[in-house]
Amino acid sequence: MSEIRLIEIKEEILTDNKEEADNLRRKLKDRGIFLLNLMSSPGAGKTSLILRTIEQLKTKFRMGVLEADIDSTVDAEKVAAAGIPAVQIRTGGFCHLDAGMVMKGLDALDLSVIELVIIENVGNLVCPAEFDTGAVKNAMILSVPEGDDKPLKYPLMFNVCDVLLVNKIDYLGLSDFSMKTLHERVRTLNPRIAIIETSCKTGAGIDMWSAWLAEEIKKNRNRREHQ
Amino acid sequence: MSEIRLIEIKEEILTDNKEEADNLRRKLKDRGIFLLNLMSSPGAGKTSLILRTIEQLKTKFRMGVLEADIDSTVDAEKVAAAGIPAVQIRTGGFCHLDAGMVMKGLDALDLSVIELVIIENVGNLVCPAEFDTGAVKNAMILSVPEGDDKPLKYPLMFNVCDVLLVNKIDYLGLSDFSMKTLHERVRTLNPRIAIIETSCKTGAGIDMWSAWLAEEIKKNRNRREHQ
Repeated sequence: MSEIRLIEIKEEILTDNKEEADNLRRKLKDRGIFLLNLMSSPGAGKTSLILRTIEQLKTKFRMGVLEADIDSTVDAEKVAAAGIPAVQIRTGGFCHLDAGMVMKGLDALDLSVIELVIIENVGNLVCPAEFDTGAVKNAMILSVPEGDDKPLKYPLMFNVCDVLLVNKIDYLGLSDFSMKTLHERVRTLNPRIAIIETSCKTGAGIDMWSAWLAEEIKKNRNRREHQ
Repeated sequence: MSEIRLIEIKEEILTDNKEEADNLRRKLKDRGIFLLNLMSSPGAGKTSLILRTIEQLKTKFRMGVLEADIDSTVDAEKVAAAGIPAVQIRTGGFCHLDAGMVMKGLDALDLSVIELVIIENVGNLVCPAEFDTGAVKNAMILSVPEGDDKPLKYPLMFNVCDVLLVNKIDYLGLSDFSMKTLHERVRTLNPRIAIIETSCKTGAGIDMWSAWLAEEIKKNRNRREHQ
């Protein structure tokens, strides 16, 4: 029975990964580095959001980016062109990043001068939700063209995230997407999640997102100083 | 080293699955049933395409649908409302369907009266590409809002498919999506793939898609009769 065997193996791997992720989180805390894990479906706008975040925050925080992809280096090239150190992690068929892969990616950055690292996870609403990367906060993007029914279909992703960016709001009105229905479905799954509506194309909502992220980085620093 | 162990386990599981898929394909061939595996990102339009296909082909072929989802039964309800038997397969966290899960789903359909079964796979461009479901043909949808760079990032998916539907063409012109660039990138990966441009909203291209599918079903029947 390959299915039962697969479940057992998966549980072991998830347990090992959780330990590694907790270790990584402790190490990063000691060094004052804020790690953000950004997840979404393919094409929802992860790279565009990272480029917008760099514009807004690069004078406030020294940044680095880990770009995960099955293949290709196109996203890392875009980030590097924006003047921010970027590491491309090719997962070679794996559908998610785990803490071990993130650790290897971080080794390629000069952590002595970095305060904020953003992970662009593999474009996938399933597997990345299951693997703790060691990040302080999990963020996800849902883009309007994907539809307002996604919380019903991928509940774990909406559950593990601290913030949801509803992106491509410039597409509102082109389909039957209801922002009210989406908010209700998300809140039912995860009452504490922050929801920010954005358009990386027009720039709408990007200031709110940057303010949210800057505030979380400050809170994390204060927690560290008071320990 | 959890990573190497994971790779080994994955290879074993893929080999077991391939055998099961080949067995299933043989069984379905003997019974004259055409199995189509439909894959895409979340929200690209799989359910809408299935509903359009039912409209076009339900008088020509007796149909059934297998709906895979991590959770929820919303898609199966929509298909059932269109008068077609639908089976919801909840994968319970798994990011793909394998041949064993498809076999269990098929057991819930009355195969003695069915000629065409469409599988709506889990919304994911990574894992479903790796697992043979036992289908005769693999189809994928890429929706215009996802961007024309997806073949660079998810090459295996474009590689294993027999037909690509570029859906939501009513969104063309709203972003920098280039149909020409997309075609070039897809053809480089997979020169034999059929590419059909559609909009499930306006109905554009649906006749071409239905004609392609009807033709493949006929070819499959002829191959069977000539053996």
